Order: sequence, then C-alpha cells, then structure tokens
Amino acid sequence: MQSTMQDVPLLVSRILTHGATIHGKAEAITWTGEGEPHRRSYAEIGARSAQLAHALHDELGVRGDERVATLMWNNSEHLEAYLAIPSMGAVLHTLNLRLPVEQLVWIVNHAADRVVLVNGSLLPLLAPLLPHLPTVEHVVVAGPGDRSVLEGVRPHVHEYEELIAGHAQHFDWPELDEREAAALCYTSGTTGDPKGVAYSHRSLYLHSMQVNNAEAFALGGQDIALPVVPMFHVNAWGLPHASFMAGASLLMPDRFLQPAPLAEMIETVRPTIAAAVPTIWQGLLGELDATKRDVTSLRNVVIGGSACPPSLMRAFEERHGLRVVHAWGMTETSPLGTVSHPPAGVSGDEEWAYRGMQGRFPASVEARLVGPDGVHLPWDGESAGELEVRGPWIAGAYYGGTEGADQRPGDKFSPDGWLRTGDVGTITPDGYLTLTDRAKDVIKSGGEWISSVELENHLMAHPEIAEAAVVAVPDDKWGERPLAAVVLREGANAAFEELRAFLGERVARWQLPERWTVVTSVPKTSVGKFDKKVLRKQYADGELTITRVG
Amino acid sequence: MQSTMQDVPLLVSRILTHGATIHGKAEAITWTGEGEPHRRSYAEIGARSAQLAHALHDELGVRGDERVATLMWNNSEHLEAYLAIPSMGAVLHTLNLRLPVEQLVWIVNHAADRVVLVNGSLLPLLAPLLPHLPTVEHVVVAGPGDRSVLEGVRPHVHEYEELIAGHAQHFDWPELDEREAAALCYTSGTTGDPKGVAYSHRSLYLHSMQVNNAEAFALGGQDIALPVVPMFHVNAWGLPHASFMAGASLLMPDRFLQPAPLAEMIETVRPTIAAAVPTIWQGLLGELDATKRDVTSLRNVVIGGSACPPSLMRAFEERHGLRVVHAWGMTETSPLGTVSHPPAGVSGDEEWAYRGMQGRFPASVEARLVGPDGVHLPWDGESAGELEVRGPWIAGAYYGGTEGADQRPGDKFSPDGWLRTGDVGTITPDGYLTLTDRAKDVIKSGGEWISSVELENHLMAHPEIAEAAVVAVPDDKWGERPLAAVVLREGANAAFEELRAFLGERVARWQLPERWTVVTSVPKTSVGKFDKKVLRKQYADGELTITRVG
Repeated sequence: MQSTMQDVPLLVSRILTHGATIHGKAEAITWTGEGEPHRRSYAEIGARSAQLAHALHDELGVRGDERVATLMWNNSEHLEAYLAIPSMGAVLHTLNLRLPVEQLVWIVNHAADRVVLVNGSLLPLLAPLLPHLPTVEHVVVAGPGDRSVLEGVRPHVHEYEELIAGHAQHFDWPELDEREAAALCYTSGTTGDPKGVAYSHRSLYLHSMQVNNAEAFALGGQDIALPVVPMFHVNAWGLPHASFMAGASLLMPDRFLQPAPLAEMIETVRPTIAAAVPTIWQGLLGELDATKRDVTSLRNVVIGGSACPPSLMRAFEERHGLRVVHAWGMTETSPLGTVSHPPAGVSGDEEWAYRGMQGRFPASVEARLVGPDGVHLPWDGESAGELEVRGPWIAGAYYGGTEGADQRPGDKFSPDGWLRTGDVGTITPDGYLTLTDRAKDVIKSGGEWISSVELENHLMAHPEIAEAAVVAVPDDKWGERPLAAVVLREGANAAFEELRAFLGERVARWQLPERWTVVTSVPKTSVGKFDKKVLRKQYADGELTITRVG
Repeated sequence: MQSTMQDVPLLVSRILTHGATIHGKAEAITWTGEGEPHRRSYAEIGARSAQLAHALHDELGVRGDERVATLMWNNSEHLEAYLAIPSMGAVLHTLNLRLPVEQLVWIVNHAADRVVLVNGSLLPLLAPLLPHLPTVEHVVVAGPGDRSVLEGVRPHVHEYEELIAGHAQHFDWPELDEREAAALCYTSGTTGDPKGVAYSHRSLYLHSMQVNNAEAFALGGQDIALPVVPMFHVNAWGLPHASFMAGASLLMPDRFLQPAPLAEMIETVRPTIAAAVPTIWQGLLGELDATKRDVTSLRNVVIGGSACPPSLMRAFEERHGLRVVHAWGMTETSPLGTVSHPPAGVSGDEEWAYRGMQGRFPASVEARLVGPDGVHLPWDGESAGELEVRGPWIAGAYYGGTEGADQRPGDKFSPDGWLRTGDVGTITPDGYLTLTDRAKDVIKSGGEWISSVELENHLMAHPEIAEAAVVAVPDDKWGERPLAAVVLREGANAAFEELRAFLGERVARWQLPERWTVVTSVPKTSVGKFDKKVLRKQYADGELTITRVG
C-alpha cells in the first residue's frame, strides 16, 4: 500500500533555502586576526550562494555533476561553496591542505576537478601543483594573499568577489535525486591510494538532522558553533550544514588555529559548542592555564579524531568549567558514529566511565561486533570484535575505486554491505562503544583477540618505560602472539620478568607477551602514530634481539 | 554521479530497534488511576512488540500491508502496536473514539481493517458496531473492562496478553520500501466523507527526527514526554515515535484525561514536556488554581489543535511557571507544521508577540501564501493568503478517495502537488505564521481578503455583544461583502451604527460590514464551532432581517 505523502527529495538546496529564510538573521562569523571578526547573515549567505551558483554555471560553464574543489580554511566563503555547489547539482570536493602534495595531485586528477576555489593564503601550496592538474580549467581566489604566484599559470584565474558580483541573488535550484552525489572527500590510509567517499544529498540532509538531535549536539537558534575541525575534514563533522539547517550561528576560525587566537575568539564571540581533535584542545588547555580567558560560553567541547586522554577531559572541566564530549567517526561515516553523552541518571565515577568511552550510536547508525571467527559478538561490554556499521550516512563503497566497483569479501565492506571500520572494541548492553585497537594491530591468539593498545597503555604506565609498542608475530601453536618492544627511560634497569609481572597484575595471564625486546625508539608514521608495520618487518627480518620470558 | 553511501531505508522498525537497545532503560509509564503507575522499559516494549508481530502474523494471519486498527487510549500496549504493526509491514490504523459511530463504521470499512486492538474500557463503544464491520475478523482486547459485551459477536476475540505470550521476543523485521504506508489516520471535515492520510515509513521517520530537533521539541534521554493529545489524533503529534527514537520516556495518561488526574500524574511522574489542545489546558489551569500542585518539571507545554488565548498562555506562565508553546499542524501534516519558539535575542512584548503566532516552519516544511488571484504573496507579515505547504511528511493525496485518485485544480492539493491547508494567514519575513481565518470563511471583497475571524474577535470585545459571527454574502459590486450577525447581551441597546463605529476604530474602513443582523444565537457544529454554512444559507433564504448601515 503506497502512502499518500508528498515525494519531496532531501536536498542540500532545502537546507540552504531554509537557513537563508527562516534563520536569515543567524550569522557566519569569520575570524580575521585583526579587530572585529567579519559577520555575514545567513540571508546574505543564501543570496551569495545563488550568485556563486550562477557564476559557476554561466561564466565557468559548470554543468551537471562536475566537481568543484575547495582548498580553503573555515570561513563564510567556504560555507557558500558548501551550500551552492551541491544545490546546483555539482559535486563539492573538499581538498585537505595538509596532505602530501603528491596525494593532492592524485586526488584532484582522480576526481577530475574542473574548478578550484582557493583561499589567497593557500596559493603558495596550489600554484606549483597546477601544471600537474590537467582537468582544472578555473581557479577562483578568495580572501587575502599574494596573487603573483599565479602569474603565467594555465588555468583561468578569477577573483571570487568579482566573479559572483552582479549575478542574481535567487537561483531555481534543480529537483535532484536525493541519492545523487553532493560532496566528495578522500581518505588517505597508510597504504594504497586515497579513497573517495561521495556523500549524497540524502546522507548530508539526514546527517544534519541527526547532528541537531540531543543524541548528538542539539544545535538550535541560541547556539554558536565553532568548528575548529577543518571543513576539509569530513565536512567539519557536519557542523556547517547542520548549523545552517538549525539556525545556529557559526564561528569560523579561518586560518587562526593556534591556541592564542582560538582562546581570544572564544572569549570574544562566545560560542556555545566547539569541535576539534585532542591535540588542538591540548594546546588550548596550555594557553588557558597560562592566560586567563573566559571560555564559559561553551556548553560542549566535542573531541573526536582520536581518543581524548581522561586527564585532559578532567583538566578542562576542573580548571576551566568546560565539558568535554567524546565522539567517534571517520570519513566513511560522515562522520557521526558515536557521541559519549552519559545515560540519564548516572553520576560520579560511573558518569566519567561513560564519558571516557567513544559513546553511543545515534538513531540511524546500526552497529555490530564481528569476532575472530566472523561470528557476531554480544553487546556485553567485554567481547571484543571489529566494529561494523550500517546506516544512511555510512559509505558502502568508494568512488571510482576497485573497492567500490567490485567489493570482495575481506575488503572494507562486508558481503551484506556493512562498513568494516577497522576498529576493534567492545559495546555495553546500553550501546556504548569502547575502542581498544585497530583491527590490523590486534593479536589473534588461539581464537581470542588481544588488544595491543591495552598492553601498551599498561606498559607505558610503568615508571621505567618511556614508550612501548606491542605487535602480533607469527606463532606455530597460537597463530599469533604479542611481541612487546619497549623504550626504557634513562637509567632504567627493570628486567623483562619484572615488566611481565607488572603486566600480569593488570591483564589475563594468556594475554602476557613471551617475546620482549628493547628498542631505542618506536618507529612512527608521518603523523606521529606508531608504525607497527615497520616493527613487524624488523621482527620478520631478524633485526630485533628477542628475549623469551615466561 | 551516484553517491557511495549505503542505501538504508528509513523504517519504523529502525526506530523500534534503536529505542529498545540504545535506550532500553527508558520507560513508558502508564497512569492507572490507582496507586503507582505501570512502568515498562523500552527494552521490554521492544521484546513485546516482536511478540505482538509474531502473534498477528502466526495466529491471526496478518500478511503484507493489511490494516490493523487500534481503538485505544494512550498506554504502553498502544505504543507496542505503534511499533510492531508498521515494522512487520502491516498498516496501523488509529481509530478516533470520539467520532460519531456512523463515521467510525464508514472508516473501518473504507480501510478494510482485518484486526482491531481495543482497550477493555472501550468495548461498549466497539461491540455494537461489529455487526456492521464485515472485514474485521479478529478483536484483541487489552486492559481492564467488562468482556461480556462481546458474547456472541462474529469476529474471533482474543486477550492481548494471552495472544502475545510465548512468542519469540525477536522478529526479523522486513526491509521494506520506505515509501510504503506505515500508518493510516482519517480526518473528518464538516462536509463529505472522512479522508484517509496514509503516512509512510519515511514520513514517520523524518517527522520523528524533526520533532527531536530544537526547532520543535528537542527530546532527549533526560526528558519525559506527556502526550495528553490522544494517539488517535495524528499519532499523538508524533511524540510516541519521536520519544522512542530519542530515548525520552513517555508518561501515558490512558483514559485519565480529566484535570485532577492530569495534575496528579504531572506532580507524581514529573514529565518535562506535555502536549494537548487548549480546552485541556484550560481545565488544568482551573484545577491548578484550585488545588496547589508542583508542575514545575514541565519545561514546555505544547498547545495545538487551535489557537491558544493569550490570556491562557500568560496565566500558565505567571501563576504556575509553565511555558506554553504554540504549535500548528493538521492530520495532513503529520502534524508538525509550525512551532512558536521565538527567535534568539527577543524579549518582553516582542517575545510575547512571537509566541502568540502559530510559529515558525521547521526544516523540511516549505510554505507559501496564495492570494485571492492565485498569486504568491510576500512574507511581509501583512499580506494574507491561503497557506500551502510542501514537505516529506505532508500529504499529497488521500487514501483511496477521489481527491487522492485524481486531483483537480481547486481541490485540496495544488496542481504542483502542494497541500492547500484551507487556512488563511500571514507570514513574517523571518517565517512566523499567523493564521487569521479559514479559507472558506474569508470574505473576498474586490480582490482583497477580509478576515471574518478578526472582525468577530473585535466585535466580541464590545461590552454589549455576547457572540458575533461574520460571513461572506454575495455583492454585485465587490463580489462578496461581510455580513455581521450579533447576539446581544441582556439589556443591550447599542445601535448598529455604534457597533460599526466601534469596529471602525480597529480595522480599515473598506473592511467594515454594511449588512447587520441580530440573531438569538450563532448556529454551531457538533463540536461547538460556528457553523457559518448555516448562517450563509439563512441569509440566502431570506430568513434574516438585514439592516444596512454606512
């Protein structure tokens, strides 16, 4: 029986029109680093988004689902691009300005971007790449920065303000299929080529609605959201679109992501919610400890990207009255995956225990844990398995890649279409996720999983250990067993037996490593994470001196 | 360009599964009228919903999209029906127990309901109708009430608890098309047959998400929602599904809708938000004034169904600290149409002015005003036109009716698919709706519209007028002009000239009626509204004594 409801597609253009009319007085407030921040109302942003769409269509010839890239900081022009490009039917491709240049070039070519919108301050990054970007026909420059580096380049160069000036402030946004791509974001793993996730209008719309629910961030007209997380990182965790939908104003930090300007903009503009990775908050905490600032306008400080040390959460709350909220997600999850609001009625240590977890799955995100043998594990807070997720804003393929084109069992997606997150963890009966390891780093020992991260954390709490990495090594009897590689502090003299006994007080006996080695430092990736691949290879090549204990 | 996102349909079963797991500790709390209310966790409700679905399928043979009706108060068994019936692919048909019995019979037959779930206390209403309901094969009785009235009836009779007992507490809910019908609700106008609105899984899901946004009611795990509005009135304004999705607990008043038990359950269970029509709140206000109760747990008292007198809003706030929130909607709008949260930053008289309006359109609800000539009017707070709305939870047809099967221009739906609400009003530039009249009652005078309601309200403020109705009558020169029919108070001696002058101080001169009549009472409909159809006929038939003034 068909329903009698209207069939209205969920489109970014509807977010745009709603925000620009119903919430026309809300503002995007961009920090400029000098004096008053720049304010632009959502009504103006709506009008300018229409102008941008006309300019892209009429002057640059953007048609259909062509890709328009942005290489921009968080500012109101970037917000206009976020709204205008998908609304006109084109695809917004956000470029991560922190990627190695070879990857940037690869990504732009893979997406076949026709236009790049770029902030003037980022021209020194873009200009040298242009000879290697044959699909790019137009470069549109917004904001301050020396244009001279663009002299003699092949693509046509335009000034953003000149380009949009004079165009109509209204656009008849097309009625698209809500499953069409609206935005494209590449994720770069440590191995292989970057992989593109193509968000649909439907996924962005539903994600925005859920970001605005109490299970997530409950944005409303009284809020000012501060996305410190860049708009090229998974759509700034959904805050720009969600804020525009809810009528929450946006405080845009532009390129001023250092602790001192962040503290100043928070004190001046008084945002109510802010989102960033732990390292940013670590820096801000130091700044606040050194220079007193009033940051009490913030009701929630959302931390994602990686787990936040409990000490940092407590320090923010006890020293500055800031409530830190854990969230977990990834490029493939749009990124809203979990948020760590504790359940109603808990307090004290129990509340802190909940807040230290990655959090609870919001409506529309389904989760399951898959164990060593492919079996689905119970949500008992103890069984550890790989997290798989499903939902309307979760990726089921990659753009134009082999993993997208023909999924194989064992790949990033399960045969029944769930995303394999590559994260290993546990889920409590009330649906709170705790991540314990990356799937590729977990030690599969005799049908059970041992968390390398848990062993490392315990070892690093030993007073004589500076760093410790635990990796899986082949074992005839158990399949895999843990190898502990430790960096000792100056003057340390603890024997491996002692370290093993220390660990034995904290984890089950069968999890204790038999193989130990001392290294001068743990190999690291370019972003500072332990590079366990290298360590495993050193072991395989016989480069490590192994002592067997126990 | 197709997106790479998973294609996961928005289904009621996902609301069910999410609430029963992630929010398994939230509760449906049903008032019993004696001692402690009955509490059932969302985990239990999830398990019992699975049992109900198995019983309907295995024992009663419900298949596909067959209709299962409910004739029930607000209680946890009704909530189980709300979740189980759509989730299994059948269609939940809520029956309005306040309808005239002929309409009830017509509706059950039109929907071809196979099963009726009924509360024991409503058997005296249902039993006499059963001989006239040939499609009904099974009656399932829940809760207290004398069963003897069912002796000798044709359909099979089952006890709810016995029927579901022993069935599996898990159901593999089917992956349905999200556009399939999930629930059916009939609206009964003053003319013609009732009309069925068939909500889809998609519309219920999206509506629930938006109810949980700050633009509407922002329900979360800390909330307890009290739907005083019955679950047979437009899904209790979406609160049951929305609460289950958000993990807000539900206080269910069952059949205890009188002021005294309502006040007692609010004091005892401490809900945070409640929703009802103005007459219920009027009664509660009297009760609270008479007997002191602590009702301060309520953060929002939502009033819909018809406009709330400003005096009632102020009385609640000043005398009992309750914040009244206006909302507007109808069966065809699921019903979330507007909510009157004032914009950020307003206060005092300006805030009260906003709160007196019907409110602001939330995301996903689009609105336009259509004037006398079919032109679209500006949102200037002054231009009055018929309100038309569009959105994914707005009806675009009626179930199985001629208006659904073949829409014609001039019907309930515009040629481009928008719903014609039949309400006339204005919209401010920031999107706040004020309703001034019903479209069928507005006076179309020389290309301008005159609000009958506005003239009536002014007239009824005159000390010598008890009641006043204004209707359109044909006029050679202007097309239509207003006729004022007044009921004078005992001993009144005001001349029409004086009443017209009184009105002339309050509205524009061209709106003043030339035709006046005194009546002993204004004709009324069965629900107590002015029956202007009768008045217009009395005028046409020459039954009224008309005095021309001015």
